Amino acid sequence: MNHRDWVKKNFKKLSQSIGFRFVPYEEIKNRLTRVRNGMRKQGVESFLVVQKMDFYYLSGTTQDGFLFLPLEGKPLLMIKRELGRAKAESPLENVVSLKSIRDVPSLIRKHWKKLPQNLGLEFDLLPVRDYFKFQELFPGARLMDGSIVFREARKIKSPFEIDLMRKAGEIGKKVYEEATKILKEGMTEIEFGGLLEAVAKRYGHEGLLRVRALNYEAYTWHVLSGPNGGIVSQSDSPMGGLGLSPAFPVGASMRKMKAHEPILVDFGTCFHGYQADETRMFSIGKMKKKFIDAYKACREIHDAVLDEVRPGADGEAIFMRTLKLAKRLGYKRSFLGPPGLQTRFIGHGIGLELNELPFVAQGHSYPLEEGMTFAVEPKIVFPGEGAVGLENTVVVTKDGYEILTPVGQGIFQV
Amino acid sequence: MNHRDWVKKNFKKLSQSIGFRFVPYEEIKNRLTRVRNGMRKQGVESFLVVQKMDFYYLSGTTQDGFLFLPLEGKPLLMIKRELGRAKAESPLENVVSLKSIRDVPSLIRKHWKKLPQNLGLEFDLLPVRDYFKFQELFPGARLMDGSIVFREARKIKSPFEIDLMRKAGEIGKKVYEEATKILKEGMTEIEFGGLLEAVAKRYGHEGLLRVRALNYEAYTWHVLSGPNGGIVSQSDSPMGGLGLSPAFPVGASMRKMKAHEPILVDFGTCFHGYQADETRMFSIGKMKKKFIDAYKACREIHDAVLDEVRPGADGEAIFMRTLKLAKRLGYKRSFLGPPGLQTRFIGHGIGLELNELPFVAQGHSYPLEEGMTFAVEPKIVFPGEGAVGLENTVVVTKDGYEILTPVGQGIFQV
Repeated sequence: MNHRDWVKKNFKKLSQSIGFRFVPYEEIKNRLTRVRNGMRKQGVESFLVVQKMDFYYLSGTTQDGFLFLPLEGKPLLMIKRELGRAKAESPLENVVSLKSIRDVPSLIRKHWKKLPQNLGLEFDLLPVRDYFKFQELFPGARLMDGSIVFREARKIKSPFEIDLMRKAGEIGKKVYEEATKILKEGMTEIEFGGLLEAVAKRYGHEGLLRVRALNYEAYTWHVLSGPNGGIVSQSDSPMGGLGLSPAFPVGASMRKMKAHEPILVDFGTCFHGYQADETRMFSIGKMKKKFIDAYKACREIHDAVLDEVRPGADGEAIFMRTLKLAKRLGYKRSFLGPPGLQTRFIGHGIGLELNELPFVAQGHSYPLEEGMTFAVEPKIVFPGEGAVGLENTVVVTKDGYEILTPVGQGIFQV
Repeated sequence: MNHRDWVKKNFKKLSQSIGFRFVPYEEIKNRLTRVRNGMRKQGVESFLVVQKMDFYYLSGTTQDGFLFLPLEGKPLLMIKRELGRAKAESPLENVVSLKSIRDVPSLIRKHWKKLPQNLGLEFDLLPVRDYFKFQELFPGARLMDGSIVFREARKIKSPFEIDLMRKAGEIGKKVYEEATKILKEGMTEIEFGGLLEAVAKRYGHEGLLRVRALNYEAYTWHVLSGPNGGIVSQSDSPMGGLGLSPAFPVGASMRKMKAHEPILVDFGTCFHGYQADETRMFSIGKMKKKFIDAYKACREIHDAVLDEVRPGADGEAIFMRTLKLAKRLGYKRSFLGPPGLQTRFIGHGIGLELNELPFVAQGHSYPLEEGMTFAVEPKIVFPGEGAVGLENTVVVTKDGYEILTPVGQGIFQV
């Protein structure tokens, strides 16, 4: 059978029968409006969307290609591979085949009847080589950095997006429920992590947690036991663990977990690209009082943050108060990392990527808004001994917040 | 305890006790020579290495920072986070703390006694925004695209690197040995894939398969059963499968596997950053004759390719002969994808990334050399029905090749 005909006839029904949810036209319409408002504010007359998650956000597909979005006129989706699937997945009207990047200008001219004078691009990620290529392909156009347009548009989630994050959180809940049956003394961190991930995948977790950055990779399963919790690594996180090698220096390692030590499990789940991030503590037998007390402090700080979350609250102010509270509780030198290596945020935006806006952090003074989603993660680190922490993903609601990661917050002791 | 002191005292011993292998000084020295030879050829006088795998290749660490490499003079490793670990992991002599990207020029001046006139950067991945930042920080310097220097240097693997790839291949072998005990009728593709990955991780597989490209993500486990094997997706691969959603449209899906259909398992394992990539066929009960025959053809093409692999053989010529052979065997219209969507390579270079040089492909006419490593993957695709294929990772030796993925090549029938 011909691939094109088969896809046209079967793909949509088949994929929906095993759980695919396609982004509805109304949802895309609202997103286009949000992005266009941002373009107007930045003086961007047209945008060539290259980065995969911005592309997915506006088109509903991650098939390979470019999206041309003018302020005036319809968007044009140009697909290198695979056109039939992109047509089935995207509610956009104008979806055409792209043989080579060299054809982008002619396809735009055919669709838009002119060429852009001023073209937004994602300078925060677009490779230099592609930038020069676009300079050559659009000789008259001014190329502009439009990254902020997407960062801003995507920071407020729609009910459709929040529902997908809720679903990701439900997968996480099931994993934690099964985790206590999996954890055994003498098991390595990575074996535990691998088995937890297998459970998550069984329920539809997509494995890869995307981060918007060149070199910053997300590792799904941070299983950090005993002293490994006290080790900082390359990521902007209070602790990183040992990892598996100098090439993967964060997260679970080949260390065998022991009784009575703190085992910090920080993981994210992903459903239709939307993530939920959470941390819980485990132990085999009771963990030492020092860690139990520190975990109580994390819960207190976590609850204090959530008490303040509502539209209008200032993220930086919330962060600064957590420093005061940590100090009052006696954890000034271990809160969010060891001295000299302490991170400066208590919450990070999350959605299609793990480092979205808003940050609840120093240097980020702006009001929270309804529909913002972020992970709150107070952590306390003792070098040479271990780490404890609690993390939940929340959405700001009209008058407060909703937790999207509804897992019990006590220590999971086996 | 102080983090710095603890890391200095314990990190190296602790990480080695659970399997870390650090890159030896002699290895780094040889790599520096290879890269500098390339720099001379390109007229690049100094290089600022940003991309994570190029950085790891020359420094032995993936802690966050920049590596400055002059043609004349010692390299300078500038580390944002975490300095103590970078010092323990890297055999380079000059490792210093970097507070902000703004300090890069002053650190270079202090170390090198001057500033670069001409600076190589990885234009194939470096974001435009960082490029402009470096223009501002090095106002007199000419910024040049030096990507090819790393692509070329890294295409020949050392015995140290080949040994790490062999180790990755051994992990894969263990996974396949356990796979037949895991596969059951009615299990979803993703459940099977997740459990295989859990086994791989237990043996030290690092989970993430890196690809050198902005939007191209690798998915470890391609479990494609029945008609899902016949579906092409966004990747430059003969088939992509359904995946889990429009946001993750390749690889294993929630489809339940059935008896007698072809189940294609294409996965990579990773050890210390080095990958091995392989494909084997599974079935529950005997698969239909059509697929058994097509799989025999894949084996014949695979063996014909390997028969030609030795230093001096031309990659493009090898590829073109596979097209002839596939045609003679009756698979002209299904070899490497369905008509109109057929890929144009039979082998892709592999190492720290999944798309390294060499390509055994149309448009890549150059001789194979000793130490090159690539994956050979003949595949045959029937839209609406399924796909079969065989894949092994090999290294070119003095007079032939060695297979780094030593798994039996028959169909795994349960």
